[in-house]
Amino acid sequence: MTSQREIAIESYGAASTLKVRERPIQAPGAGEVAIDVAYSGINFADIQMRLGFYPDAPKKPFVPGYEVSGKVAAVGPGVTGFTIGQPVVAGTYFGGYTSRAVIPAVQAFALPAHLDLEAGAALPVNYFTAKLALTEMARVRAGDKVLIECATGGVGVLAIQLARHLGAEVTGLTTSPHKKPFIEGLGAKALTKAEWLADATATGYDFILNASGGAEIQPQRARLGITGRMVCIGLSSGVKDGKRSFVRMGMAALRTPRISVLKLFDSNSGIYALNALKVLEDPTWVAKLTQSLGEVEAVGLKPHVGKVFAATDVAEAHHLLETKGATGKVLLAW
Amino acid sequence: MTSQREIAIESYGAASTLKVRERPIQAPGAGEVAIDVAYSGINFADIQMRLGFYPDAPKKPFVPGYEVSGKVAAVGPGVTGFTIGQPVVAGTYFGGYTSRAVIPAVQAFALPAHLDLEAGAALPVNYFTAKLALTEMARVRAGDKVLIECATGGVGVLAIQLARHLGAEVTGLTTSPHKKPFIEGLGAKALTKAEWLADATATGYDFILNASGGAEIQPQRARLGITGRMVCIGLSSGVKDGKRSFVRMGMAALRTPRISVLKLFDSNSGIYALNALKVLEDPTWVAKLTQSLGEVEAVGLKPHVGKVFAATDVAEAHHLLETKGATGKVLLAW
Repeated sequence: MTSQREIAIESYGAASTLKVRERPIQAPGAGEVAIDVAYSGINFADIQMRLGFYPDAPKKPFVPGYEVSGKVAAVGPGVTGFTIGQPVVAGTYFGGYTSRAVIPAVQAFALPAHLDLEAGAALPVNYFTAKLALTEMARVRAGDKVLIECATGGVGVLAIQLARHLGAEVTGLTTSPHKKPFIEGLGAKALTKAEWLADATATGYDFILNASGGAEIQPQRARLGITGRMVCIGLSSGVKDGKRSFVRMGMAALRTPRISVLKLFDSNSGIYALNALKVLEDPTWVAKLTQSLGEVEAVGLKPHVGKVFAATDVAEAHHLLETKGATGKVLLAW
Repeated sequence: MTSQREIAIESYGAASTLKVRERPIQAPGAGEVAIDVAYSGINFADIQMRLGFYPDAPKKPFVPGYEVSGKVAAVGPGVTGFTIGQPVVAGTYFGGYTSRAVIPAVQAFALPAHLDLEAGAALPVNYFTAKLALTEMARVRAGDKVLIECATGGVGVLAIQLARHLGAEVTGLTTSPHKKPFIEGLGAKALTKAEWLADATATGYDFILNASGGAEIQPQRARLGITGRMVCIGLSSGVKDGKRSFVRMGMAALRTPRISVLKLFDSNSGIYALNALKVLEDPTWVAKLTQSLGEVEAVGLKPHVGKVFAATDVAEAHHLLETKGATGKVLLAW
């Protein structure tokens, strides 16, 4: 094998602008591993990047993608603990939409024994996000009343499992009534967003995981209990269909509130925002979070793979995610 | 004894407007206890009320004061667990500037054995505030890097002890260099605010307890670590001397930032604001916090009494607090 395939963002726009291209493979340098990628994970941030709305994205053209699973193909000088052919999961922090990833070895971790390579590719970003939000920011504990807004999304599915493991009482929301049994299967109470809004007893939360951002933040915040906290993890309310996404992202940003600290005194609550990508710019946190993947096997956490597309069908994969048709993680298979 | 003395806010203004008045004593009703008050605690909020800047204050004229210590003088019908003459601490939630308090029995708690009545009166509001900020909101845990801004204040002194008990590494700030040994005696690193601002390594905090509010919030927030949190507990930067307090309170409120949730995504941090008085409007929390006073004896927490004034010298007591001359709690003795 002398060439690899990859998918680059060369211009901003609709999903159809994404195309597979080829380039020669590279040998891993000192401290690096090369991975024959089986699956690449797709994230909302990739869509925001494709639309030109992600401030921390590299300059185009660039290869997006935060995470892969696959088998170790080559090991660079000075790397120990990996063997050729070993199944691994890895954070790539850009460059993940590729058939062969060359990354620092500290960003790779042995595939948890209870997961296959599909589930593995669904793990890094979603698990790191859930972990940062629940364990590091909110510090969820036994007895907490927890609301997971996007309960069927890649983060939500792991967040429910993690919150239940921590002993919390969890409610999961969905916009689609037919997804309620899936949420209940994870051990949470399931409500549609409409049912939740109409339920006057659905209040007093110790922790709300908000994924929509924008105008949805304030009405949810109003349902926090005393000393409760919200962690915002995205702006998915700004993405609905390819055509209107530019306008929607701008609207979502405009609708995202500025919160007066004086008003916070009235509610006795707190608010965090989490951009896992920013956290992963810090090598200390990359190492800490990669190591924490050991918990995935210990707790038996299972990411939920929504749909797998051939890498050449990346436009369809993006479209599914932006129209909110997916339950769980969307992957590209190489 | 047929009459009691009390101090009311009859008009807004300087400390000299506060005067001691007399009224007939009342017998406790069902579920109430009467306390012969030994000491009444003074809080910043009392000063804000006197100046007319506290939105949750009752309509004037009213008797301010959140907390007392003393001995049980009478027990109302249906009350068990208290005996006449028993030393107690109690939250009064207004009405505490009195020589005899009649309150719901659930708001009173046996004086911790290691404390005297002076220290007892310094306990309720400061301990509840520290407890809510550290244990309920921030959820401080072992290994946390913690900054206590007003380390010599009534809350700060207990917050340092509580954070050290929880296993955190604590730095305490003061504006007065001569107070540093006192902070060090509590087990914290001590810095003046100027030293702290000049120290480039004083960053990466998991938790900052902010008491000044206003313009001090943003520069402190900038020193939070990834996933770190600030809890704001007041606006003391708005109070400096009697004459200019109206202007200063207004300025502090104006300088209190509105924090864009979009910007929070850049810092990966969180912010809470705590108004303990609001929390104490909720009977569930009053009961929960009063019960948690059991921890004070178990952990050996010691509030620090700064100065005790005769109740008739209440104007001097207020003045000391508003000029920031006090280290620890200021009390009125009856």
